[in-house]
Amino acid sequence: MSLPVTETLLAEQRDHALHITLNRPQVRNAMSLQMVREIMALFDYADTDDSIRAMVLRGADSHFCAGGDIADMAAARAEAGSGNSDPFQALNREFGRMITRVNQASQTVVALLEGSVLGGGFGLACVSDVAITLSSARFGLPETGLGIPPAQIAPFVARRIGLTQARRLALLGVRCDGEEATRLGIAHECVANADDLAEKLATILAQIRRCAPQASAVTKKLLLDVESTELETLLDRAAADFSRAIQGPEGREGAQAFMQKRNPEWAQ
Amino acid sequence: MSLPVTETLLAEQRDHALHITLNRPQVRNAMSLQMVREIMALFDYADTDDSIRAMVLRGADSHFCAGGDIADMAAARAEAGSGNSDPFQALNREFGRMITRVNQASQTVVALLEGSVLGGGFGLACVSDVAITLSSARFGLPETGLGIPPAQIAPFVARRIGLTQARRLALLGVRCDGEEATRLGIAHECVANADDLAEKLATILAQIRRCAPQASAVTKKLLLDVESTELETLLDRAAADFSRAIQGPEGREGAQAFMQKRNPEWAQ
Amino acid sequence: MSLPVTETLLAEQRDHALHITLNRPQVRNAMSLQMVREIMALFDYADTDDSIRAMVLRGADSHFCAGGDIADMAAARAEAGSGNSDPFQALNREFGRMITRVNQASQTVVALLEGSVLGGGFGLACVSDVAITLSSARFGLPETGLGIPPAQIAPFVARRIGLTQARRLALLGVRCDGEEATRLGIAHECVANADDLAEKLATILAQIRRCAPQASAVTKKLLLDVESTELETLLDRAAADFSRAIQGPEGREGAQAFMQKRNPEWAQ
Repeated sequence: MSLPVTETLLAEQRDHALHITLNRPQVRNAMSLQMVREIMALFDYADTDDSIRAMVLRGADSHFCAGGDIADMAAARAEAGSGNSDPFQALNREFGRMITRVNQASQTVVALLEGSVLGGGFGLACVSDVAITLSSARFGLPETGLGIPPAQIAPFVARRIGLTQARRLALLGVRCDGEEATRLGIAHECVANADDLAEKLATILAQIRRCAPQASAVTKKLLLDVESTELETLLDRAAADFSRAIQGPEGREGAQAFMQKRNPEWAQ
Repeated sequence: MSLPVTETLLAEQRDHALHITLNRPQVRNAMSLQMVREIMALFDYADTDDSIRAMVLRGADSHFCAGGDIADMAAARAEAGSGNSDPFQALNREFGRMITRVNQASQTVVALLEGSVLGGGFGLACVSDVAITLSSARFGLPETGLGIPPAQIAPFVARRIGLTQARRLALLGVRCDGEEATRLGIAHECVANADDLAEKLATILAQIRRCAPQASAVTKKLLLDVESTELETLLDRAAADFSRAIQGPEGREGAQAFMQKRNPEWAQ
Repeated sequence: MSLPVTETLLAEQRDHALHITLNRPQVRNAMSLQMVREIMALFDYADTDDSIRAMVLRGADSHFCAGGDIADMAAARAEAGSGNSDPFQALNREFGRMITRVNQASQTVVALLEGSVLGGGFGLACVSDVAITLSSARFGLPETGLGIPPAQIAPFVARRIGLTQARRLALLGVRCDGEEATRLGIAHECVANADDLAEKLATILAQIRRCAPQASAVTKKLLLDVESTELETLLDRAAADFSRAIQGPEGREGAQAFMQKRNPEWAQ
């Protein structure tokens, strides 16, 4: 299987990372239905290629993503007048499917946040495993100011930063910069400029390389299931995961490399 | 319906906000059963008047609320000796009903925290959407020092600041000031004096005005339901909420105002 | 019942606290199966002695705990080759039982963190009620670098510091010092040296003494059950807890001491 052809995204694999750039700079990379589907196609593709261990998300032209696309809304409005389906509901739900898909990716997802990180862009940032932001980035949920709820986004914001901060942020419609976003836990680290962002990304990709791919995927799934799975059930499953891992190729290679004081295969 | 008459509270509507003052200054606004019921009556009233979009909670005489009322406890003790009902349980549970009611208010709830923010006052602070504190305020859960658990309060504290900080705070019975309360996430912002508190409140009320009332209420309900609702179910509901909102009066007005580069009606 | 004899732990009661020292300094107190079982035995013992109100956990020779024991792993590997049981799964799950047991202790658990706080040691730190760390301590989850998941640990890390920080920490395999561990919420407070650690412990033990033992145990159980219990059900139970406490010996003593302006019995 080869890399899917995409119109709204740039995609390129370098080493163990698939770099994805949201690429509609004329509208600050606003999220169209086509972009939503192309993101899902790239994540599905990544699952077919074991050499891809990290997914890096960023936006073209120094903006991450300014939110939902107005043209899609207009199209839905036209369609809504002519039939009995609900194009708005379908459009909104599809966006949530993409966010859910990225959240559950077996690869480690890194988001590089610059410029506008608004609405749907904010939601996408909230499901990354590691998010680095420029201090000058602008985060916000402008939806209620436009008369609509941040519907598919709100649950992911609450899970990202907790109910306490999410309710203030959503109900006041306030914006914040990269430093406050880091304090709130939307991003993990804040850097001053593009050079520092590139350097930080290189460090993160090297750290991901040192972690065994299967063990990382199993760990991520355990963490994601904490909220929805009863604790004893999860711990039973975790013990089975552990046993399988330590007796499998990664566990054996890890133990040997440790005893031989060398890097394991996956880290080379 | 007119504003309910209250003895333990002052209540006044100014513009889009109902301002409620806990008004038993002789006991630092300790929470009596009557006060509990009057707070619920005012929140019920607010739901009958669409012009009320914010609820502002504060205490008289530079204290927010020093906790439960000792006179109520003495009355319960007298009653407990004479019958087979359980007046303590009923009294405690009614307080929890009030906290739950305020937490679920469809309006945006702002708490202004000064002086004593203890026990039940602490619990009430924990269900606001936006909490501003004076740095000099004193927060704490003194219950275990008196031989009782912070029963109706503990769950709301854990949801507000997380289990990690809640267990330390409750099990050591420690007090903290406004700055630490803000670091812990009990309050959102900390200010130095009453003038700054008033100015901050004015800013927040202006921000609330810019957010569409129905969209805000729908958003708040989504956020509150994240913990108790399975994610896919919640996202399905959110998509239906979105569709209803964008095709309803607020969504249409929001889109028009955006295109005409003017403020929407609700922000005027 | 007398204090169990332990080989891998030092245990001593002083006043109202049982002080437990992980004592395998030659391997930086790595957690063996025997240590896991001895920790559980000491927590079971503590429940038989009402005078024990705090459990203090630390490690010998300026390390808390460097993780799982390699000798146990080798033994499991030998056993796995010879039969059809799964010794790895059993070993891992037993560790999780110990973490769960410590998390649910009715006493207040204090962890003093120094040197290595890795893997299983990190997990144990995550279930304390109060954790104090030296700034020089080193925290980390090295498992994925060895080809295995932090299986029984991951759920407790996610509950301790939230999914957002847990996913970054586990998936990058990064280490952090005491100050960052405190910012992340793994520890509650960070001190510079051993003297400050001892002084802080004395303060915490005095604070625990001022809180009524039964009321503290009931409060802790309420807090731990917030994630797994429906809110209204929990509040109903809390009201019954409250009634029982206020009419019981601690509640009566607490009320009398308050009126007589003296310390209650349990605080003397």
